[in-house]
Parts: sequence; C-alpha cells; structure tokens
Amino acid sequence: MPIYAAPVRDTLFVLNDVLGYERHANLPGFADASGDVLEAILGEGAKLAETVMLPTNRAGDMQGCKRAEDGSVTTPKGFKEAYDQYRDGGWMGLAVPAEYGGQGLPYCLHSAVGEYLVSGNMALMMYPGLTQGAIAAILVHGTQEQKQRFLPKMVEGAWTGTMNLTEPHCGTDLGLLRTRAVPQADGSYRISGQKIFISAGEHDMADNIIHLVLARIEGAPQGVKGISLFIVPKFIPDADGNPGTRNGVSCGSIEEKMGIHGNATCVMNYDEATGWLIGAENAGLKAMFVMMNEARLGVGLQGLSISEIAYQNAVAYAKERLQGRALSGPKAKDKPADPIIVHPDVRRALMTMRAFNEAGRALVLWTAIRSDVAHRSGDEADRQAADDAIGLLTPIVKGVLTDKGFEHAVMAQQIYGGHGYIEEHGMSQFVRDARIAMIYEGANGIQALDLVGRKLAANGGRAVQAFFKEVGAFCEAGRADEKLAPYTKGLKKGLNDLQAATMWLMQNAVAKPDNAGAASTDYMQLFGLVALGYMWGQMVKSAQEKLASGEAGDAAFYEAKLVTGRYFMERIMPETAAHLARISTGADTMMALPAEAF
Amino acid sequence: MPIYAAPVRDTLFVLNDVLGYERHANLPGFADASGDVLEAILGEGAKLAETVMLPTNRAGDMQGCKRAEDGSVTTPKGFKEAYDQYRDGGWMGLAVPAEYGGQGLPYCLHSAVGEYLVSGNMALMMYPGLTQGAIAAILVHGTQEQKQRFLPKMVEGAWTGTMNLTEPHCGTDLGLLRTRAVPQADGSYRISGQKIFISAGEHDMADNIIHLVLARIEGAPQGVKGISLFIVPKFIPDADGNPGTRNGVSCGSIEEKMGIHGNATCVMNYDEATGWLIGAENAGLKAMFVMMNEARLGVGLQGLSISEIAYQNAVAYAKERLQGRALSGPKAKDKPADPIIVHPDVRRALMTMRAFNEAGRALVLWTAIRSDVAHRSGDEADRQAADDAIGLLTPIVKGVLTDKGFEHAVMAQQIYGGHGYIEEHGMSQFVRDARIAMIYEGANGIQALDLVGRKLAANGGRAVQAFFKEVGAFCEAGRADEKLAPYTKGLKKGLNDLQAATMWLMQNAVAKPDNAGAASTDYMQLFGLVALGYMWGQMVKSAQEKLASGEAGDAAFYEAKLVTGRYFMERIMPETAAHLARISTGADTMMALPAEAF
Repeated sequence: MPIYAAPVRDTLFVLNDVLGYERHANLPGFADASGDVLEAILGEGAKLAETVMLPTNRAGDMQGCKRAEDGSVTTPKGFKEAYDQYRDGGWMGLAVPAEYGGQGLPYCLHSAVGEYLVSGNMALMMYPGLTQGAIAAILVHGTQEQKQRFLPKMVEGAWTGTMNLTEPHCGTDLGLLRTRAVPQADGSYRISGQKIFISAGEHDMADNIIHLVLARIEGAPQGVKGISLFIVPKFIPDADGNPGTRNGVSCGSIEEKMGIHGNATCVMNYDEATGWLIGAENAGLKAMFVMMNEARLGVGLQGLSISEIAYQNAVAYAKERLQGRALSGPKAKDKPADPIIVHPDVRRALMTMRAFNEAGRALVLWTAIRSDVAHRSGDEADRQAADDAIGLLTPIVKGVLTDKGFEHAVMAQQIYGGHGYIEEHGMSQFVRDARIAMIYEGANGIQALDLVGRKLAANGGRAVQAFFKEVGAFCEAGRADEKLAPYTKGLKKGLNDLQAATMWLMQNAVAKPDNAGAASTDYMQLFGLVALGYMWGQMVKSAQEKLASGEAGDAAFYEAKLVTGRYFMERIMPETAAHLARISTGADTMMALPAEAF
Repeated sequence: MPIYAAPVRDTLFVLNDVLGYERHANLPGFADASGDVLEAILGEGAKLAETVMLPTNRAGDMQGCKRAEDGSVTTPKGFKEAYDQYRDGGWMGLAVPAEYGGQGLPYCLHSAVGEYLVSGNMALMMYPGLTQGAIAAILVHGTQEQKQRFLPKMVEGAWTGTMNLTEPHCGTDLGLLRTRAVPQADGSYRISGQKIFISAGEHDMADNIIHLVLARIEGAPQGVKGISLFIVPKFIPDADGNPGTRNGVSCGSIEEKMGIHGNATCVMNYDEATGWLIGAENAGLKAMFVMMNEARLGVGLQGLSISEIAYQNAVAYAKERLQGRALSGPKAKDKPADPIIVHPDVRRALMTMRAFNEAGRALVLWTAIRSDVAHRSGDEADRQAADDAIGLLTPIVKGVLTDKGFEHAVMAQQIYGGHGYIEEHGMSQFVRDARIAMIYEGANGIQALDLVGRKLAANGGRAVQAFFKEVGAFCEAGRADEKLAPYTKGLKKGLNDLQAATMWLMQNAVAKPDNAGAASTDYMQLFGLVALGYMWGQMVKSAQEKLASGEAGDAAFYEAKLVTGRYFMERIMPETAAHLARISTGADTMMALPAEAF
C-alpha cells in the first residue's frame, strides 16, 4: 500500500514566501483565508487526502468500475463513502462564488488542496474534477435560469458533471462531430449520437449527472462553426429541483483502459435526449473552452500529483531497501548492506523528481494566483496581464507537467526494481494512471501546437513578451546578487535559448507553417524548463532571504531548497540547448519522406 | 489486433551491405547460410513471427498464466501450439553446435530472427529465451556428462530452462542470497530456499524444466564469493534420458505484473530439491554471467522488437486516422480530413522511432557478429577484439535499447490518442511489456554502473580505446567525402562529447567514486547515441555507395536511409551535449542532502 504525506509545508512556503499570497489580500476571498486559516484549510485537505482518498486508491485500480446490464455503473468499494466525505467537507465549492453555494475562497487554494487529493486518488478525484469544469462553463455561459437550476446542486456535490466531446471518428478535430440536436417547440433540443471516452459518464456516487454535450443543430454549418453546447441531465430536474424523469442518455459500455480504473470511462449513447442550449448557437466550442482551459490546468496538476506521490514512495523504498554498499565505503555497517539511497544513480532519480515537483508546485500555484487575479481583480490592466499569463502557461502546465509526471512515475518505479513491476506496491498503478494525463484534454502534441500556433502570436505576442521581460528582469537583478547569481546564470542561459527559439519561429514559421509544427513539442518543453527554472530562481531567492534574516527556524528546509535549486540548474536546465538545436533544424528532413515510405 | 511485418529487407541490408556478412564466410556456419539461404531463413523466421507468434500476443496479455492448486501452471490459449511450431522448426538450436543437436548457424542469424519473433510475442519468446541462456551456461561450464544429459533435450526444445537468482531480500546484491545447498554422499546437493521473479519458472509447454539456481553451499564464505550454481531439474532424468522422478521444486505463486502476462513469473520454492553443481564451487556468479551476458543482449533486443512493432502500428494508424488538415494546406481533399501523418509533430514521433529502430537493428547485429567472431574465429587477435567489443557494448545494448524501446512504445501509443490508452488496440500492452526490459537482467542503472565501473577500465581501457579509434577513423575518412561529410560531422561532435566525458571520468572518478555513479546513466546514454550514430554513419555510407553504383533497383529504400540518417544527426545527436554537461557537474550537488532531508 503506497504511503503519502501532503507537502503542506512546501505549499505554505510557495504561497506565503515565494508568491506573496498576503499581497493579494485585497482580492475577494483572500482575506478570508490567510495565516492560520490558510494553514488550517491546507491541513484539512491534507487529512482528507491521506486518510480518506489514499486508502481507496489501490482498491480502485484492482476492482475498477462495473457496468450492469441496465446500464448502471458501480464504482469501486469505498469510493462512494470517500466522495461523501469530500462533498460533506464542502470541497467542491471551495472557490465557487457564495451566490451559488460555494465558499468563494481563492482558486489557488483549490489548486493547492487539489494536488493533495489527486495524489491520494487520481481516479476518484476525476468525478469532482469534471464537475468543477462543468460548473465553470455554466457560470460563464449559462443563463440565469440555468445557473439557478443546476449550479447549487452541483456545487453542493449532490450532482456531478461531465464533458462530452469525443466521438469514435473525432477527437482533436471536433469539426467532424456528428451528434445531432433537433430544436423542439418548447425551446429544448433532442440530442442523438454517440460519445466515447466520457470520464465519470455514469456512476453511483451522485443523484444526478449533468452532461455538457457538443452537438450540431440541424442545418448548422459544417466544421467547428456549426457546433453548439448543450446541457443534458441524466434526470430532468422537476419543478422542485429534484432529479425527475430519466432522460434518453445511457452508458453503453465502460472502456477497458491501461489505468485510472476507478474512473468510469463510458461510451455514452444519446437517444433523443432532452437538452438545453448553453451559450450561443454554433458557439459551442467557445463555451466548451471555458471548461477545457480549467480542465487542462487540472490535468497538469494530475502530472504533479502523481510525480509527488511516486517520489514519496520511491524515497521510502530507497531508505529501506538494503542492497550493495556505497561507492565511498559502507554506510550502514551494522546491516548486511546499505540502503540504496546511498547510490548516486538512485539519488539522481530522487533529486530529478524532487527538483521537478517543487518547481511544478510553484508553477501550478503561480498560474492559479494569476487565475484569481484575472477573475477577481478590480484593476483592468492586472486582469489582462494575468489572463495573458494563464493563456500562455496553460498549454505548458498541461503538456510539460504531464510529460514529466509520467516520466517520474516511471523513474520512481525503476527504483523499486522488479518490485516496481509487480502490482503489489502500487508503483505500476502510478505509471498507468499518469499515462492518461498526456493524452486527454488535448494530447500534449496539441498543447504544443496551441502554444506555438495560437498563444505566442496572440495580441501581437503581448503575453510572451511580458513573460520574457519578467524573467529577464529577475535574471538581471540576480546578476548583481552574489548569492543568487550562480542560480540566475543557468536560468538566463535557458531564457536566451528560449528567446532564440522564439525568434527562429518568428522568422521561419510564418512563411512555412510546417516549421512551427516541427518545432512545437521541443518549444513547449524548452518553455517549460525556463518556467520551472524561473520558479527555482524565485524559490532560491526566498530561501536565501529567510536564511539571511535569521528568522528561519527551519534552516534545513531552506538549505535543501538551495541544493535542489542548484541541482535543477546544473542537471536539468542544460537540456534547453538540445531543444533549441532541434527546433532550428526545421521541418525539411522530418517531412522529406513520402507517406508511403513509412 | 496489432499488425506486424518483419523488416527482412532491412535486416538483409544491414547484414549484407553494411556489416559485410560475406566477409565472415570463413567462420563456421556462415557459409552454410549465405545469399538465398540467408534470405530463406529470415523469410521463414518472419513467417513464424507474423502468422504464429503475433496472433497469440493479445490473448497472452488478456488471459495471462494460471496456477492451479497443485502448483501446475497453464499458459494462455495458443501458446503451447505456437511454441510447438517454434520447436518443430528447429529454431531453439539455430546457433547451437551440431554436436548437441543444433544447426550451428551464425549467432547473428539467431539475433535477426529473434527480433521478429519477440516483436510477434515477447512474453512467449521468453520461454525459449531463458532456455537459450541456460544452454549457453551449460555449454561453457557443464561437465561432459551434464552436457550429454541436458543439452540435447533443451536444444530440441523438449525441455526448457530458467535462471534463478533473485530472492525476496536480494536482487542486484546477490551476495545477500540465502538459498542453501547441502552436499550429499552421491555428489549431488539438496537445495532449499525461495526464489522470486522466476520467468518461465513453471508452465505446460515442455516435458521438463531445467532450473539453474544460485545457492550457497553449507559453510561457504559470506558474500558473492560463496555462491555456487546448480542444475535443478523439475523432473530428474532417468537412465534413458526421460523425465523421471518429480524433484522438490515447485511454483508457489505467480506474480501479478504490469505486463508480459503471457509469461509465468513465478515464486519458486526449493525444498530439499536435488541439484548438481555446475562449474566450480563458489564460482557460481562467474558461471551465471555467461547466461546473464547472453540474456542482457536478448533483453536489449526486446527493446528493439517492441519499438519496431509499436512503430509499425503507429505508422498504420497515422496513415488511416483522419483528423485535421495539414498546416501547409489540405492533402486529402476528397476526405473530411487529412490522415494525421501529414502533421509535423506526428512525423517527429514516427521519424524518431524509425531512426532508432534502424540503427538499433544495426547495433544488435553488429554486436551479434562480434559474438560470432569471438566464439568462432581462428585468429586470437580477432577473437579478443570482438570479445572486448561485446563486453563494452553489452550494457549499452541492454540499457539504451530498452530505455528507448519503452520510450518509443509510449510515443507510438501517443499517436493513437485516447485509442492508445484503451486496451483494445494493443498499444497499452506494448508499453506495459516494454517496461520490464528496463528492469530485469540488471536494472538499467546497474548496466550504467557496469559500463563506467568495469567495462571502461577493463584491460587498461583497451575496448573503449579501440571503439574510439574505429569511430574516429570513420569520421576522419568521412570528412574527405563530400556526400558523407554532412553525416559524419554530427557523429564527430557526438564522439568528441563522449571522449570528453570519458576523460572527465578518468580525471574525477578514481579519487571520488561517487562521481562515476553520478555520471553513469548519462554516460551510458551518451555512449548509446554515439554507437547508434556510428551505425547511421555506416548505413548512410552503404546506401550512398548503392545509389552511386547505379545497381540499386531499390532507390527509394536507400534514399529513405539518407533522410532518416540525416534526421538522426540533426534531431537526436544534439542530446550528447546535455549528457556531457550533466556528467561534468559531478556528484557534489546530487549527494549534498542528508538522507533524512528526503
């Protein structure tokens, strides 16, 4: 059974010391959760993750979800009870406005606690995760009547939500979708078609399931310009707001998957189901993007969560497993062998994971605070700058954190040797679970294209120029600081490579778009390294300030930050050069072979 | 159901054109299988892989092996019949001396066909794979009587073999092993203890199973110097050579694993089982190493095999799946969308896999031919040089080909999007199967340590110096060749980085062994890039010669080699610089944190 201790201390360091949480006290919600309250909320979230979510995790993988002949779905043992505790704790609505039954607390708190809960049980947390995406879409695009009808129950957690995009023949290319919507006299629509890969599509943990479904209204244009978004509840709420008549939507089967067995991934059949348009006709993709952007950040978080719990277990095993002697001479002389943490190659893996996890956590919270500013600030310039940053960083958080999350689950599994390959210790599950995060909510190749194809050029490159300016200024200030300079030097080198790559794209991708596609994945990874490196720069700066102030009761904690930051700069940052070299070769060789040569 | 077509054309190119197979006609066995015969054998092997092995692959994963209460094990449906065909075709003894019932053909042929068969069904091919390792150990270390008693049946495939090293508390560190051997008056031993992770430990495909078991003779020294190797048959052969009395060895359970479900990975219980010493007392590790070295090359081959079949399926899917339009404008205008092979980021993945597979195949065959020279040449200097090369390249073939094999299985799965994550298409199985190859037969971290700790320094660095000289001379010759120079330039840069890293190790690892451990994995990967790059250099040279000679009926094949070789040099070779940068930072930061800080 895997172990897990939520990294509350580290979250507090990032929020309070690095990101200046207190500075945002003027934003709605922040003042309600600062100091001891902030700590208490994180503590409660940690407890829920460690004592409620984690104990259900292995069972979820081993049992999976079962569909009965009538289309009903049973979740693994303990899931319903764990979800009940989540719901009763009010976690679903933590960051939702009080108007709809939420607590109105900062979104960054939601992210911080989300990391813990997903570490505890990723498959289970997908049920509320999808619900929160649906809540976000209804909040932004729903009518007042729709909000009143659906949000309170969803925010309470009594009803859950889903997003229905994919069909057997279309995933990335939603323009091909065929699900039909036929307008009815009463203003509703009849929805018919088949959706696949629907996470949390059917289950036994909530009284009702609110499906958000992309479909094409009869006579709508071809392609993405003819897609609309619909609310299709499993049970049509009656006048009192209770789940009423069963709607024409059902789970046709559950997919057999590599991982996240605890989540019911359903084929959903819509057979003249009643639905209501949400947002404007034929503007469904725009409405769905509210949900997708939120979901993408949530998926990036999954990468971090799995990397963290896999790391913690690898650490425990490395301290406990006795095998061989240290190259520098025996360490545990009273034992038949040394714990394998003495071996540099094991350390390499542990330090690599650790350096990523700590920076990844900072990047997630940095982005989350920007989300709070974008939604809550009274200052338009602040809102715009924050919104720019989120748009730019979303594909990076999603793509890079999930690629690395998987890579680190594999790395942690490797530390277990053969014991990692058998299912008993749960390391295989982390690898199998983490794998999906690279695929869903837009495969990582699509994230990379979103970055180079849309986000870079948006508003004349305003977002990326602001990011370069911010990081560049940090490096410049660091140059004059004897203690910080060794760290900012590596960051500056990475930033230079990123700027050179950006320049290359500007010069070569407009005339020849394939050059953008050929560069995209490397560019995203390169950007991710600089973004994570920037987090390290800031964390090191904060740690040095704490140590210098003498008020650090916790010197070992801050000293460890300096070591781990140095490791990142020495061992991980140098990868930027290889990415730049690859980007600069362009698309010619890559595209030279005719398809039939493959 | 996955598709597969054995790359016979490519194998012939590597053997005949690149590696000069005909030049070895003076070695025993080579003249028996050249020209049409060579082609016929590869063709038969391809047929067996495509029509017998492949159809059993998915069933093997889905059904797994079942242990009954009496300890007997049933393999998945179709395995026994497929194995029967393998056995009846005489494949087990392809490269074994005729004296013991083999065909005495070159080992490189065995490797070439082995690649196909493992692509077809990795889990199934482990049963004969382990047997061949056991045959090799008995051939080298067995007494004449032991050879007569066991080899003919094993070479025939009527009996299979296993290797028993790991115990619950010891894997890498075999010095800790506890299985006991008590000498008997008749010269035999009574073996007692528990072994875990025993591949092919018990099954229903052969009449007898010959276990090679590491154990400690009563009173033997502690540590690795007190370990001996024993032959412990499941049934003790009677005077006529038939399986006779059941021995005291049994399968206690089958492990639940992430993949290779078709292979029975057993806990084996030895309860006063009768065994016979093989090789000298307390020299068991040396005897087992014959088997392990063979097995390590075989595991490297598994990495290649899975990378190849995963690539082939990704190609098929990329040509068939319609999604989106090419950035350079629609290609399949008559269809609702273009096949995804038009997208550069999909090409990137396909070209990366292809560039690896073709070079990996060349490297495996290059090493295999050296094995033939080492075992069969009449010239001592040739034998020694070949043996040096095998020793040096074994950890690289094992470590790099399996790391990349897994990475590419993941890459191929990614091309399928969500369809890759569900089990239906078999892409998940490739990922799950490939994962074990990084772990067993010495986890890849151990391979890296073997390389930097043993192989580099062996015989005063003779092997590595010879390798550098050979690759350096190739680059130097290429510099003068206008057509080849663009390729050797990248290779030379990689070689320079590798030599710089080697120099760094010489200067920094002796005084501080942790520097070697801290560098080991990066050094192995760096070496692998140069070795694969060298294969590309040679393949490009051969392809250019073919094209220049005008005799190339198959110009497209050779032109594709030039493109793929260029891709390798442009996109993959630049990684050497990051490895060198990491290696040069040493162990200080990596080892700076006390264990309790983790």
